[in-house]
Amino acid sequence: MKKFNVAVVGASGAVGREVLATLAQRSFPFSTLRLFSSHRSAGQKTKVGSLAATFEVLGDNESFKGLDIVFFTSGSTVSEQHAFRAAASGALVIDNASIFRMRPDVPLVVPEVNGAALDSARDTRVVANPNCTTAQMVMALKPLHDRFRVKRVVLASYQAVSGKGQKGIDEFKRQIREHVDGRPLTTEAFPHPIAFNCLPHIDTFRADGFTGEEHKVMEETRKILGDPSIRVVATCVRVPVLNCHSESVTIETEKPVTVEQAREALSAMPGVKVFDDPATNTYPLALDVSGKDDVYVGRIRKDPSLAEGQYGLTFWVVGDNLRKGAALNAVQIAEAAIARGLIQNQAPR
Amino acid sequence: MKKFNVAVVGASGAVGREVLATLAQRSFPFSTLRLFSSHRSAGQKTKVGSLAATFEVLGDNESFKGLDIVFFTSGSTVSEQHAFRAAASGALVIDNASIFRMRPDVPLVVPEVNGAALDSARDTRVVANPNCTTAQMVMALKPLHDRFRVKRVVLASYQAVSGKGQKGIDEFKRQIREHVDGRPLTTEAFPHPIAFNCLPHIDTFRADGFTGEEHKVMEETRKILGDPSIRVVATCVRVPVLNCHSESVTIETEKPVTVEQAREALSAMPGVKVFDDPATNTYPLALDVSGKDDVYVGRIRKDPSLAEGQYGLTFWVVGDNLRKGAALNAVQIAEAAIARGLIQNQAPR
Repeated sequence: MKKFNVAVVGASGAVGREVLATLAQRSFPFSTLRLFSSHRSAGQKTKVGSLAATFEVLGDNESFKGLDIVFFTSGSTVSEQHAFRAAASGALVIDNASIFRMRPDVPLVVPEVNGAALDSARDTRVVANPNCTTAQMVMALKPLHDRFRVKRVVLASYQAVSGKGQKGIDEFKRQIREHVDGRPLTTEAFPHPIAFNCLPHIDTFRADGFTGEEHKVMEETRKILGDPSIRVVATCVRVPVLNCHSESVTIETEKPVTVEQAREALSAMPGVKVFDDPATNTYPLALDVSGKDDVYVGRIRKDPSLAEGQYGLTFWVVGDNLRKGAALNAVQIAEAAIARGLIQNQAPR
Repeated sequence: MKKFNVAVVGASGAVGREVLATLAQRSFPFSTLRLFSSHRSAGQKTKVGSLAATFEVLGDNESFKGLDIVFFTSGSTVSEQHAFRAAASGALVIDNASIFRMRPDVPLVVPEVNGAALDSARDTRVVANPNCTTAQMVMALKPLHDRFRVKRVVLASYQAVSGKGQKGIDEFKRQIREHVDGRPLTTEAFPHPIAFNCLPHIDTFRADGFTGEEHKVMEETRKILGDPSIRVVATCVRVPVLNCHSESVTIETEKPVTVEQAREALSAMPGVKVFDDPATNTYPLALDVSGKDDVYVGRIRKDPSLAEGQYGLTFWVVGDNLRKGAALNAVQIAEAAIARGLIQNQAPR
């Protein structure tokens, strides 16, 4: 079996560490592993599976020579500076930042949904990993779109603080502690207190009043499903949950659809689990889905607000935003790229 | 000025205590006050404004003679047993339970929205106080409906634990403490842990997969707005917030509507405050609205997912579910009923 030289940029962050855990859990075939991190973590050692590795600082003119796969998990500034340089060195870049996602020459991939789009990265050698909220939503939309044709999507999200990275998790935990101690809640990472609150504000505001996060959902959904005619409106809300995004998704379809047919279609989708039995209080919950690979769908109902001749559903989707929403999907992209012969195998170095 | 003999049933609960606070804050003209509570609180004393009162147990055959206004805040079982008996004694009953809300002979009232409907209680003498989620939503819908005609509403809610009453608040606080102490979260009031979680389950499930809470929103909205043609779909979610419900509301209108026109219409609505300036991170938040009388609306955007010839908006509504969603609206109903001459003044007893 081929083995690969792999690097993870941002390896000490919330998504980076999840990438390392996922590589180990899935016995990813790496022969060498370079871990780039902030100055704060540089020099520290960690273990990934049986391999010991040391965090190193990413130099401004870092050479990526000899690397087969580089995961970027540090955000758009770092990706902008280094991703295409890494790709030019021959590596396949899997980029978790948002900056390249809508570029026509960069495929935006959820392997179960549009794995074939990977082939268009043969030249640019950069693949974008979607926004977390979008990734789990398209997992549920794909089988419904294939069978009933989704025309319109109304999303309201309930997003965990881990989506803001380690500093989001730390801030929420600090505020919980402040509350218990009877002290005022202090804010740094979020614009307002997140403990005991719901913030309808993720990413920065655009001129149309929507946030960057909402634009990502609205635009990336169309690109991943490969259908620019799908109309999407999103309201993205940060909630006081540590991990896992929950979503209230309301769709209109071109073809008639029953709850039973939707259950069937969703159950047949790899990576999706239907978890929907009101009689036993069974529906997906953030606390339960955290750490799971699958995207969970429940509360599937016929939408009673549609006019005659209109068809649609409303349902509840929960996914682990650090896994399917980030690290797992990134590693699955690497696995799919290997399977499709996209990765130049340079190992052993 | 006339003064009234008032009673509050469920006076020691979360809503009941808020009714007492609201009566005092608004200098409600009561001459006597009877407070009915559970056995647990019976005999305890409290002060409402300058008046000292003692909690008493509500007897099975309690006489409501001499009372002008009775607020019921104990839930449907108690209301079913006593509300119409109290009304038969000559009191005007303002009932916070859900059981009578959809009865054609019982008006369901948000005074700023449909105060005139109160007149239909002249005979039955029972007025229903709407569901909390519905009350704050119709405050925002009313001025938009009047001007642009609302055809369809898609709601996703973010509901505070105080909506479950004192036992919901206590359970959430206990779970926070358990988390901080590293103990497993124990559940009693809610079907699953609410701390660090989002529960898409409020009230009991119906055969169509919707919950009772969702049905309340879908049905009460039409009744209060007096327009059975409005189509509503709701997903009601409990979130780890102590007080105030937040709502993502997406509407379709018959007439074209701009964000500016919507702001104008909402700003002119008594009891509604537009709080919407993305440039300064200004939008309504549960922590800020708690304790406020007004319903706050922000994040007002044109819905980009509508097809040509369709019009609509999406926005964010936050209200104090114990105040406008319950106690304040109940007291406002009493004030409006007095103004409309509906209350037989029997004081002084």
